[in-house]
Amino acid sequence: MADYREMWENLNMDLEKHDVLCEALPEMFGETFLNQENRPDGMNYFNYVTAEIHGARIMELEKHRKEGGKVVGAFCVFVPDEIILAADAISVGLCSGSQFWIEDGEKVLPRNLCPLIKALTGAKVSSTCPYFQSCDILVGETTCDGKKKVWEILNEYTPVHVMELPQMKREENYEMWMNEIKLFMDKIEELTGNKITVEKLKEAIELNNEKRRALKRLYDLRKNKPSPISGLDSLLISQIAFSDEPRRFTEKVNELCDELEEKVKTNTSTNKKRIMVTGTPMALPNWKLHSIVEELNAEIVVEETCTGTRYFENEVSTNGDTMEELIKNMADRYLDINCACFTPNKGRVEDILRYAEEYDVDGVIYYNLSFCHTYAVEYNNVEKSLRDNNIPVLMIETDYSEEDSGQIKTRVEAFLEMI
Amino acid sequence: MADYREMWENLNMDLEKHDVLCEALPEMFGETFLNQENRPDGMNYFNYVTAEIHGARIMELEKHRKEGGKVVGAFCVFVPDEIILAADAISVGLCSGSQFWIEDGEKVLPRNLCPLIKALTGAKVSSTCPYFQSCDILVGETTCDGKKKVWEILNEYTPVHVMELPQMKREENYEMWMNEIKLFMDKIEELTGNKITVEKLKEAIELNNEKRRALKRLYDLRKNKPSPISGLDSLLISQIAFSDEPRRFTEKVNELCDELEEKVKTNTSTNKKRIMVTGTPMALPNWKLHSIVEELNAEIVVEETCTGTRYFENEVSTNGDTMEELIKNMADRYLDINCACFTPNKGRVEDILRYAEEYDVDGVIYYNLSFCHTYAVEYNNVEKSLRDNNIPVLMIETDYSEEDSGQIKTRVEAFLEMI
Repeated sequence: MADYREMWENLNMDLEKHDVLCEALPEMFGETFLNQENRPDGMNYFNYVTAEIHGARIMELEKHRKEGGKVVGAFCVFVPDEIILAADAISVGLCSGSQFWIEDGEKVLPRNLCPLIKALTGAKVSSTCPYFQSCDILVGETTCDGKKKVWEILNEYTPVHVMELPQMKREENYEMWMNEIKLFMDKIEELTGNKITVEKLKEAIELNNEKRRALKRLYDLRKNKPSPISGLDSLLISQIAFSDEPRRFTEKVNELCDELEEKVKTNTSTNKKRIMVTGTPMALPNWKLHSIVEELNAEIVVEETCTGTRYFENEVSTNGDTMEELIKNMADRYLDINCACFTPNKGRVEDILRYAEEYDVDGVIYYNLSFCHTYAVEYNNVEKSLRDNNIPVLMIETDYSEEDSGQIKTRVEAFLEMI
Repeated sequence: MADYREMWENLNMDLEKHDVLCEALPEMFGETFLNQENRPDGMNYFNYVTAEIHGARIMELEKHRKEGGKVVGAFCVFVPDEIILAADAISVGLCSGSQFWIEDGEKVLPRNLCPLIKALTGAKVSSTCPYFQSCDILVGETTCDGKKKVWEILNEYTPVHVMELPQMKREENYEMWMNEIKLFMDKIEELTGNKITVEKLKEAIELNNEKRRALKRLYDLRKNKPSPISGLDSLLISQIAFSDEPRRFTEKVNELCDELEEKVKTNTSTNKKRIMVTGTPMALPNWKLHSIVEELNAEIVVEETCTGTRYFENEVSTNGDTMEELIKNMADRYLDINCACFTPNKGRVEDILRYAEEYDVDGVIYYNLSFCHTYAVEYNNVEKSLRDNNIPVLMIETDYSEEDSGQIKTRVEAFLEMI
C-alpha cells in the first residue's frame, strides 16, 4: 500500500478523498460477492483484480508509461481497441460506476443527467480515479447527448479525441465510420510515435477476437440450466474486461470456463427464474440490480448491454492484406453493434428475441439508467415486441443511490412471482 | 367554424378532444397579449393568425393538397425550407408547445423527457394537431437523443424522412451535410413529383432570405431603448414564422417594421431592464417565460434560440449557377447555426457575447426545457464566459406546466433587482 500512495501522489490524486472510496469498496465487494454459495475457484483471479483495481493495474500502466508507452482512456464499446493495441498503447476503461463520484459530477453538470456521465465527470474533477490520472488521452464518441457535451468539459483536464459515431446505419454511414477510424488511427500514431502496420493491426485484431471468444464461451456456458456461474460474477468479469491486460484476461476467462464446463456435468437443477437484463451499461462497481435480483429466487443468465453481449458479439474479420480492408472489417464489426443511439435500431429487438430463446429466459428486465433518453424511448418498441412474443418484461429505471433499492426489490419480487 | 369542423373531421382529428384545446387558447392568448399597453397596430395580423392557427392556415394547406400539392412537416431550424419551397410544397412547423399534449405524449414516452418532444408526440398520437394531420411527410433530424428516437414512433403514423445532422463541424461534416441535403432533395422530388431546378432553388433561397431579412430588421429595431415591441410580441412572430405562408409573412413583418421605425422616433425612455433569453426553443403557444419576465420591470430584447436569432441569422448565398454550388451554399449556412447539439460549439458563446453588446442587455436568462441535456451541459461553459465578461445570468429550467410559475417569478424578480 505504501507504494501505491506514492504512485497516487505522483498521479496528482486527492489522496484523502480517495481513501474514503478505498475504504468502502472491500466491504461492499465482500457483501455482494463473497457470500455467494458454490462460487467457482476461477473467480479468485477476478476477486484479486477487483481488490487491486486502483493498485496493481495502475502500477502496470505507470510502468508502461515510464518506458515511453501511452495509456488511452475510453468509455464506450464503439472505440476500436485494436487501433490502440496495434500502436503498443494500453486501452483502459474510465471510472464511472460509483455513487461516490456523483456529488463532484453535479458540481459541473446538471443533476438531470445519467449517473454514468455524472460519475465519469466527478471521478475526473475530484482526482480520485487513477485510471483517469494515468491517461495520456481520452477517446470520446457521440453516442448520446450527455457524453457528447461532457467531452468539452473533460477536455479542460486531459486532451480528448472525439470520434463521431454515425447516428444511422445506411451505406454512407459505414463509409463515414471508416473515415473516423482512420482519423483515430492518425491520432494514435501521432500520440505514440508508433506506425500501425497491417501486420501489427492483424495481430491486435486477433488478440481482441480471442478475448471476445473467451467471453462468448463464458456466456454460452450460462445457457446451461442452472447456469454454472452467477450473473453477478459474470458481470464482474465483463466489467474487468475494459481495463485488464487482454492476454492475461483471456487466459483467466478460459481457465474459468474449463472449470465451469466440468461443473455443468454435475449440476443439479434449481427452480430459479432465468432473467435477461437488457439496456444501459453497468460500470464497475455498479452491481445494484444484479445483487437485488440474485438475492431473490432468480439468476441473471444474459445481459444485452454494453457490459454484456454488445461488448463481445461478432468478431472483426482478419480477411484482407491491406490497411483499407482491415479498417473496413473494423468499421463493419463496430457499426453493427445495436446500440439505442442509432435510429432506427431494429437489430436490437432481434437480438433480444434471439437471446430470449437461446438462453431460455423466463423474463426480461429492461434496465435504464435515469435520464438515458435513447434507451428510455426505445423501451416502447422493445416492450411491444416482447409482448407480441409473450415474454414478460419489467422496466427498472434507477441511478446509483441505494434509496430505491427496497422499492426495486419489491417490484422484482412481484415480477418473479408473476412469471 | 362549421367549415373547420368538417375539415378537421376529414383530417381524422379527435374533435371532442380538440375542442378542449380550442376553448383554452383564446383566453390564454387574450390574457397574455391583448392586455399589453401601446401595442403596434401591425400586430393585428399576427393576432388574427394566432386566432386562426388551426383554421385559416389549415384551409390553405388542404386547398394546396386538393390541387395535388404536398405538405411537409418539420420541427427544426436545420431542415432546409428552400428545398421544400423549390418543389412547390408547403413547409409547416409541428404542434409542440402546449401542456395540453403532454399527457398523451407520456403514454408512449418516458416522463423524463423534454416537454417539446412529449408535446410533439402527444399532438400526433391524440390526433389533435391539424398540421400533423395535413402532413404528407415529416422531416426529422438527429439533433438530440429524444427527437432522434421519437421519429421511430411517429413513423408508425406518418412517413418520416430523417436527415442525419453531423455532430461536429469539421470539413468532412460539411461534405456529409451536403450529401444529406441531396438525399432530402431526392426525397422531396419523389414525394412531389416536381423536379427542383437551379432556377427554382435560387428563387426559393431568395424568398427565404427575404424572410430572414425581415426578421433581422425586426430584431434590429429591438436594439432601440426602449424596444418598440415587446419580447412577447416578437416571440409570437417568430413562432408564426414556422407555419405561415412565407411571402405574406415577410410582407406583414416588414409592414410592422415600418410602423416600429416611426414609433422609435417618439419613444420615451423607460427604466426597464433589458434581458436576453438564450437556450432552448419556445414553440407556439409557449409564452411562459416571456409573460413572467415582462409582467415585471423588464423587457426581453433578444432571443438566442431556435425561435429567435438561430432561425434567421445568416443568409444562404445565391452565388453560383449549378446545383452543387447552391447545395454547398445551403450546407454552409445551415451547418453554421450554433446549436448545442454540436461538440464543440464555441460559436454559440461568441454569439451570446456579441448579442449582449449589440442589444445592450442588463442580464441573460438561460432558458432550458427540462431534460434537454445538450443545452443543460453547455450552461457550464456559457455561464463561465458570461461571468468572465461581467454579464449576470440566471438559469431557469422548466417545462410547460404552471406549477413552478410562482417560483420562477420570484427568482426573476430577485435577479432583476440584483442587476
